[in-house]
Amino acid sequence: MKVVKFGGSSLADGGQFTKVASIIRAEKERRLVVVSAPGKRFPEDIKTTDLLIELAETVAAGGEAKEPLRKVVDRFAAIVEELGLDKELLDTIHGRLQHLIETYKENTPRLFDSLKASGENENARLMAAYLEKLGEEAHFVPPEEAGIVVTDEPGDARVLPEAYDRLKKLRERSGILVIPGFFGVSKTGHIVTFPRGGSDITGSIVAAGVEASLYENFTDVDSVYSVNPSLVENPNEMKELTYREMRELAYAGFSVFHDEALQPVVAKKVPVSIKNTNRPEADGTLIVAEREQKGLPVIGIAADKGFLTINLTKYLMNREVGFGQHLLQILAEEGISFEHTPSGIDNMSIILREEYLENGKEEKILHRIRTELQVEEVHVERELAMVMVVGEGMASTVGVAAKATTALAEAGINIKMINQGSSEVSMMFGVNASQADAAVKSLYKACFETAGAR
Amino acid sequence: MKVVKFGGSSLADGGQFTKVASIIRAEKERRLVVVSAPGKRFPEDIKTTDLLIELAETVAAGGEAKEPLRKVVDRFAAIVEELGLDKELLDTIHGRLQHLIETYKENTPRLFDSLKASGENENARLMAAYLEKLGEEAHFVPPEEAGIVVTDEPGDARVLPEAYDRLKKLRERSGILVIPGFFGVSKTGHIVTFPRGGSDITGSIVAAGVEASLYENFTDVDSVYSVNPSLVENPNEMKELTYREMRELAYAGFSVFHDEALQPVVAKKVPVSIKNTNRPEADGTLIVAEREQKGLPVIGIAADKGFLTINLTKYLMNREVGFGQHLLQILAEEGISFEHTPSGIDNMSIILREEYLENGKEEKILHRIRTELQVEEVHVERELAMVMVVGEGMASTVGVAAKATTALAEAGINIKMINQGSSEVSMMFGVNASQADAAVKSLYKACFETAGAR
Repeated sequence: MKVVKFGGSSLADGGQFTKVASIIRAEKERRLVVVSAPGKRFPEDIKTTDLLIELAETVAAGGEAKEPLRKVVDRFAAIVEELGLDKELLDTIHGRLQHLIETYKENTPRLFDSLKASGENENARLMAAYLEKLGEEAHFVPPEEAGIVVTDEPGDARVLPEAYDRLKKLRERSGILVIPGFFGVSKTGHIVTFPRGGSDITGSIVAAGVEASLYENFTDVDSVYSVNPSLVENPNEMKELTYREMRELAYAGFSVFHDEALQPVVAKKVPVSIKNTNRPEADGTLIVAEREQKGLPVIGIAADKGFLTINLTKYLMNREVGFGQHLLQILAEEGISFEHTPSGIDNMSIILREEYLENGKEEKILHRIRTELQVEEVHVERELAMVMVVGEGMASTVGVAAKATTALAEAGINIKMINQGSSEVSMMFGVNASQADAAVKSLYKACFETAGAR
Repeated sequence: MKVVKFGGSSLADGGQFTKVASIIRAEKERRLVVVSAPGKRFPEDIKTTDLLIELAETVAAGGEAKEPLRKVVDRFAAIVEELGLDKELLDTIHGRLQHLIETYKENTPRLFDSLKASGENENARLMAAYLEKLGEEAHFVPPEEAGIVVTDEPGDARVLPEAYDRLKKLRERSGILVIPGFFGVSKTGHIVTFPRGGSDITGSIVAAGVEASLYENFTDVDSVYSVNPSLVENPNEMKELTYREMRELAYAGFSVFHDEALQPVVAKKVPVSIKNTNRPEADGTLIVAEREQKGLPVIGIAADKGFLTINLTKYLMNREVGFGQHLLQILAEEGISFEHTPSGIDNMSIILREEYLENGKEEKILHRIRTELQVEEVHVERELAMVMVVGEGMASTVGVAAKATTALAEAGINIKMINQGSSEVSMMFGVNASQADAAVKSLYKACFETAGAR
């Protein structure tokens, strides 16, 4: 039993629906289908989800809903038209959206969550209807029926453990089950959406719940590349990588598969296949628990900007039992999660995302550090980028650090920070944000293009 | 006004006393003299401090003190004889030791502290007497009179802030003041010794207290070398280095000048000169607050063994506000100070000295980590050595990391950990303890011997 998830661009119009249907029908094992809302049909197009947000904003501001509502329905109307589906479907879409607006117009968070979720919800209905039209036994299964129970945090839902037991029962149902992605249902019956990467999360939860043999994630690329393809021409395609490698790359900015979406499948060791709806015959990229070590020790290189460091100095800091704890306690009390804490003997740095020190937090944190820890010096350094070199083979390969640091030196990049050691699967370099792209390019060249690298 | 400190080998016998006296008398500014106990005269010799410990152990065990006491007095007798000092000095030494034994025989910690301190105490008296014999105005000034007030922790005294104000008054006294190193006096009037490197600490405290223009530390080497001279032939001599550089090297095993001894002079920015009693004309090594950047970015390389890492893994650890704080809190509650905490995304390592996990601490700590932090995995990795590459110029020099990691790779050394970023003055590599010496040698070669390095 396989779970197949299709992204927004894979379901943008009737033509894409046709491709998706033939992918689903090509394998009997593709029994659980998770769909996104219709995405862009052409570069300047607007995603359905964004149209729904516009609708929600209009309603929340007390404006006239008619025109933004029409735009949303039009998107579905085009699909219904192209696929020759029953036009009555459109009336029910319009009616359900109207009903949501009426129900939640005074409750902005609920209004946003339920309208945003409508993109996936209605698209799943259309997909089920289309599959039925093609002669398949297909059922639309909303999250409530599927058992995707989540926490009641609008826009930031997290799946509850009992969801998995309930999802497992889907194994017993017949036909193709079409489930809308992006949202779950709270214990009180409300629609609550997931954070960024939401439909991937749904697919992953469903795959873990039904203990699928494979979670196929169809998008619009042939495979995941080893480096951002806007930086390097013809970059290496990753045929196979481990969950850990994907997780590290996702953390450092690879947007193909969001890191939070991995967690459910990691726990159940369900392999994930990233494939192209438009070229399903391409191999794609397989994400697995373990892979055979062959070829390059490095599998991918990524960079993420927007970090800063708080640097502290205090003589004999390393002898002071409880110093680090007190420092991290200040951060925890201020609700700030940090990334890393490299330390010297008399100094320590806290690396965190720049946004965490906004809105007066910086002054407050620095004041507490100065007064409570009695440090000799504390200052903030901004515009840091984290560049990650990722690969399971690195821990057992002598010389990866040498190759990487030499490449950076030759590109004239000053390494502000190196973090290697805790994770066996990555090496991290802190560089000035303005040099991040150059760093990625030089590292890619050294690890993938230099003679003997492959 | 200069403070001059002489180590044990510089005061081992009458001949050495003569050298020391002429060094003191060569400069009018050398007004404050701090002395150690008589050290080894030849490799198989026993240091006076060790003879005193033997005496203390005998007394503590209820044994016969006569023979070990004689051995101690004999060491001073030889000096008195060689310098032609008044023989009555020996009776008073014998009498004072007898008195200490009587006073403290039931109080082992005090017995040890006061007997150990006697080596410096009596040697300072002899030095004052000898300088007087040579026609100088010289005064023996015990720590009580000098104002070296310390905490009452036998064997681990720490100077109290008020000591500095009291020491400042020594500026007003005439003549050469000879102060015994290694101990202070508690507020209740007890002798309490400093930890390792004790006489250096006294010298540093006195230099800071009197705000000396220079703290001259006379030992038995011409200068401090850039690397352990037992590993490299004709190693580079450091002419000048900063407090920070010295501190990092001392931390990583350079025993020339103990790191705790630096703190007082750092606070008052008193320069420290390391010189050779046997060759006072040699330049020596000057330790200063700031130095001009010229020549090599790296000034020294050191390694220290005996570390371990506790490695933890937990999925999405970096999103968990308070995780690091809770981990460090466990360590603080168990009284364990750690060295570094490199972290990946889903993992964190704690590096600490192996001795901290002895006597059942390991089981306790791991149990707490497992149960309180609910990590997926935790394990301890032993036999780690920390190799430090130190130099103020490193932060501003592109390519030091590349040079260092390449050297290690070429020597076939697997880098388990790299820590660079918090301190601008050092880079640290974690390697297997068995490869530590090879790592130091290869790094030295790359940083100091390679063409173009100088």
